[in-house]
Amino acid sequence: MPTTDGQLLPNGVVAPILTPFEVDLSVCHDRFVAHAQRLLDEGCVGLAVFGTTGEALSVATREREAALEALVDGGVDPGVMVVGTGVTNLPGTVHLTRHAMELGCRACMVLPPFYFKDPPDEGLFRYFAGLIERIGDDRLRIMLYHIPQVAGVGLPTAVAARLRTEFPEQVVGLKDSSGDWATTEAFLDIDGLIVWPGAELPLLDALDRGSPGCITATANVNPGPVVEVIRQYGEGGREAAADAMERARAYRLALQGQPAIPTMKRLLALRHDDPTWATVRPPFVEMDEAEGRTLMDRLAAI
Amino acid sequence: MPTTDGQLLPNGVVAPILTPFEVDLSVCHDRFVAHAQRLLDEGCVGLAVFGTTGEALSVATREREAALEALVDGGVDPGVMVVGTGVTNLPGTVHLTRHAMELGCRACMVLPPFYFKDPPDEGLFRYFAGLIERIGDDRLRIMLYHIPQVAGVGLPTAVAARLRTEFPEQVVGLKDSSGDWATTEAFLDIDGLIVWPGAELPLLDALDRGSPGCITATANVNPGPVVEVIRQYGEGGREAAADAMERARAYRLALQGQPAIPTMKRLLALRHDDPTWATVRPPFVEMDEAEGRTLMDRLAAI
Repeated sequence: MPTTDGQLLPNGVVAPILTPFEVDLSVCHDRFVAHAQRLLDEGCVGLAVFGTTGEALSVATREREAALEALVDGGVDPGVMVVGTGVTNLPGTVHLTRHAMELGCRACMVLPPFYFKDPPDEGLFRYFAGLIERIGDDRLRIMLYHIPQVAGVGLPTAVAARLRTEFPEQVVGLKDSSGDWATTEAFLDIDGLIVWPGAELPLLDALDRGSPGCITATANVNPGPVVEVIRQYGEGGREAAADAMERARAYRLALQGQPAIPTMKRLLALRHDDPTWATVRPPFVEMDEAEGRTLMDRLAAI
Repeated sequence: MPTTDGQLLPNGVVAPILTPFEVDLSVCHDRFVAHAQRLLDEGCVGLAVFGTTGEALSVATREREAALEALVDGGVDPGVMVVGTGVTNLPGTVHLTRHAMELGCRACMVLPPFYFKDPPDEGLFRYFAGLIERIGDDRLRIMLYHIPQVAGVGLPTAVAARLRTEFPEQVVGLKDSSGDWATTEAFLDIDGLIVWPGAELPLLDALDRGSPGCITATANVNPGPVVEVIRQYGEGGREAAADAMERARAYRLALQGQPAIPTMKRLLALRHDDPTWATVRPPFVEMDEAEGRTLMDRLAAI
């Protein structure tokens, strides 16, 4: 396990929090604060706010700012928040990053610019270097965000390594949502970079390699089993954690196969008897209630 | 050739105008206005402002608004402008669309939301329907923007057809930058939809099928040959235009193979003896000057 030196967050599960909407598609601040507090109460050590699961790219800049302020005003500790701030353009990313820093958020999670495909490594490097220079604040902490199958553009390991080397104070972590263990290992090989897998399936291997935990969407509906894996790993090592891992894996696999965001929102709507929770922004379409009930029953049987 | 009834722009070449930057990467309004006027002087019938070639997704909302206002203040007729307003989120797209309409721009060119890949048709439809409802103005004219190889998300023909059917007053055109003629034909089959190919290579076939012209990046550096194709086609038909088409094709093919935006900006920097024109925003990297000179010589020989 890594030491706490230079950590962004304690060892454990980070929840990429869902963003709740009203029926008119505006962001619902009350449900957002309540959900954040519940996730922390259930054992998550941090919140990745406005990641892919949070439909961040479906939410406009001002809405993102207002919602983040609502979380902090609602009593959620900004010190446990890693805030997604990467949009397709540099000035917009600078703006959101500065806003999150001003609120005291622990770090920013930054996508590569993802509109133009197959960008040159030099251009990707310049984008992040430009961000760091424009922020011009030693307190900036960046978690690079690698999710090529959604964003359409990933972070080549050579670019991540160069950024880590040239900006060791700022570029401290990386979320690898590729789902490809060879890629995760390549990022883990970068000296001093803290790597969170973007799902729980490779968690034991990642813990073996020094990851502090994982950032997994499942945490929105059932963080318990994954929290338990990391607790047992910390107390008894890999052997002790293996059983807990099987339970976490079974839950994850049962959840997969549907569009993740509409599915989890429908599950929360059913659990809290609050149909509005099922609302998603286009291009997503909300999950049918009956379909959600069937899935809920299947999950309950695990 | 189509009648002028219901046309967005006259028959001819529409230039997806490059967005010039200063060395500090701010948008250069003076060069932008001068370039727009030059393209119209050289025979373009319209300007597609803030498309892919305009590095639109690398430019923040407020910068886009200011630059569009600079064009209009600089004397460029908003009636010839089709403005790219599609970002990844609906409120942001509504905001930019409303701004372009308030300036009197002819139409808005709207990408599908492109962060989440493989979105359901119903979700894509709801996004555009939501845009039209939120704008709530009969003057709105939309050119759908299909460029899946860059955006990562395209407009299925079924979605384009449904939008055309349900909103015939608003959804009037489509720019097809797929480069795939079978796709272009499928869009051309949608009743009443005006289709512009996003390059000059299929221009004669498109004119045969009733397209009013094309929207081609090449126009930024050399609109003449493509303008000539459409002029000859209008006066003498396909036979008369064939020779002109060969010249246009030769130029296009010589230009291809390099990253289009850095290449065209370098060519303009050399032509106007203005090195700043070569500036691009990351993730692009500017083209080397010597490489640009070599290319310029090759183009001059055509």
